[in-house]
Amino acid sequence: MAETIRRLALGLEYDGTDFVGWQTQRSARTVQETLTEAVSRVANQPVSIAGSGRTDAGVHASYQVAHFDSTATRTPRQWVLGINSNLPGDVVVKWAREIDSDFDARRSALLRCYRYSIMECDTRPALLRHRSWWLRETLDCGAMAAAAAALLGEQDFSAFRAAGCQSHTPMRHLVSIGVRRADSLLRLDFTANAFLQHMVRNLVGVLTEIGRGQAKSSWAGEVLASRDRSKGGVTAPPQGLELIRVTYPDRYDLPPPSFD
Amino acid sequence: MAETIRRLALGLEYDGTDFVGWQTQRSARTVQETLTEAVSRVANQPVSIAGSGRTDAGVHASYQVAHFDSTATRTPRQWVLGINSNLPGDVVVKWAREIDSDFDARRSALLRCYRYSIMECDTRPALLRHRSWWLRETLDCGAMAAAAAALLGEQDFSAFRAAGCQSHTPMRHLVSIGVRRADSLLRLDFTANAFLQHMVRNLVGVLTEIGRGQAKSSWAGEVLASRDRSKGGVTAPPQGLELIRVTYPDRYDLPPPSFD
Repeated sequence: MAETIRRLALGLEYDGTDFVGWQTQRSARTVQETLTEAVSRVANQPVSIAGSGRTDAGVHASYQVAHFDSTATRTPRQWVLGINSNLPGDVVVKWAREIDSDFDARRSALLRCYRYSIMECDTRPALLRHRSWWLRETLDCGAMAAAAAALLGEQDFSAFRAAGCQSHTPMRHLVSIGVRRADSLLRLDFTANAFLQHMVRNLVGVLTEIGRGQAKSSWAGEVLASRDRSKGGVTAPPQGLELIRVTYPDRYDLPPPSFD
Repeated sequence: MAETIRRLALGLEYDGTDFVGWQTQRSARTVQETLTEAVSRVANQPVSIAGSGRTDAGVHASYQVAHFDSTATRTPRQWVLGINSNLPGDVVVKWAREIDSDFDARRSALLRCYRYSIMECDTRPALLRHRSWWLRETLDCGAMAAAAAALLGEQDFSAFRAAGCQSHTPMRHLVSIGVRRADSLLRLDFTANAFLQHMVRNLVGVLTEIGRGQAKSSWAGEVLASRDRSKGGVTAPPQGLELIRVTYPDRYDLPPPSFD
């Protein structure tokens, strides 16, 4: 008798500080590998975990989504409790859902949203040192928001793409860039269908130079039009970055982020 | 010729996770000892550091104040930059001020404010695991605020005092308790002239039992009136606690917290 294969979707949160990133690498601590081991133990069989996308070393996620297949019979609650009891403190499964077999954490995703946090302060942060980029200047949010407008829409983001990026196309649809300040903390929210490698961090690099007054607002659009990475600014450091939402078609009925 | 002794006040931020607390102890990593070493190096002479009060192992501070005396001639900016370059990443000096010699970080303080953060969630937090107490229940804030009212004013807090507390009196003036929820995060702000050892964590232990519906709102006042620690609830864990403000007389003109 053939066993029934079930597909499970998982909602994840992790602190990227002590991981070399999402994707499994030989002899390095990754989220994917850590999760694969925990899920395999609960499933009592080897499983293969696929995420909505990779995150770099030091990058966090408050809402990452993954899927896997298993013949194990467990309720969603049993999956969550079992997996979490096998995971270290810096990664946790927030929910599990049995889901249609056509669901794919990467290919089914409609939108990803990343948040980049900048601490504007004379002195370095201690409490948020692993979760923000420290800048001494107070940035001009108005200039940054004006610059952001030129980046929206379906565009060729070659100028904001890491040299090693393996995507077959540099085209991405950037839906929105939100700029919001709460006291010393500046938050930039980027929503797109998908992102190229280092794309958010490279966008932040250009926007902060504009925010500092080192370049005009029009420079962001000029960098984009050049399609040349060497025309851009610095790559902002990873610890300020956090994946905060992945959106799927409504029919999958996945839980929304608990807060933002 | 006698050298001029100057008194300096310092504003501090620290992540308490990897410290055994504020106060210097033999062969353990403390904030006081770490700071004393850094300041002594910059002063080029041994200094003695006094803080506004102790914090326990794992307890954080976004606004702690300390003072020391030195004959070294440095501008406030030189103190800040010099000390910070000698401190590890989890503690930082936010400001330095030359101050009247009658200033004492502990004795001059008028008010202290501590924040306690509770994460209400089905699953344990990963990103805020070192900065919140995880509870599965959603607490009844209204019941907690009602209970808090009975705790305010000049009172004998023996029932909320650790067995090892060395204060000569159990009397404290609790000025306010603020209860505020932002999504899954519940924040309790306690302001008093001063606190007994474990007092905030013991108050949180009683208030959360009321918030869970395990006791009526009137129970907080009953515990207080008993003056008996054994009548109280659990001691909430340290990682949810953060010193967020110490208030001094206006004439010292110390910088306010940068945000809260």
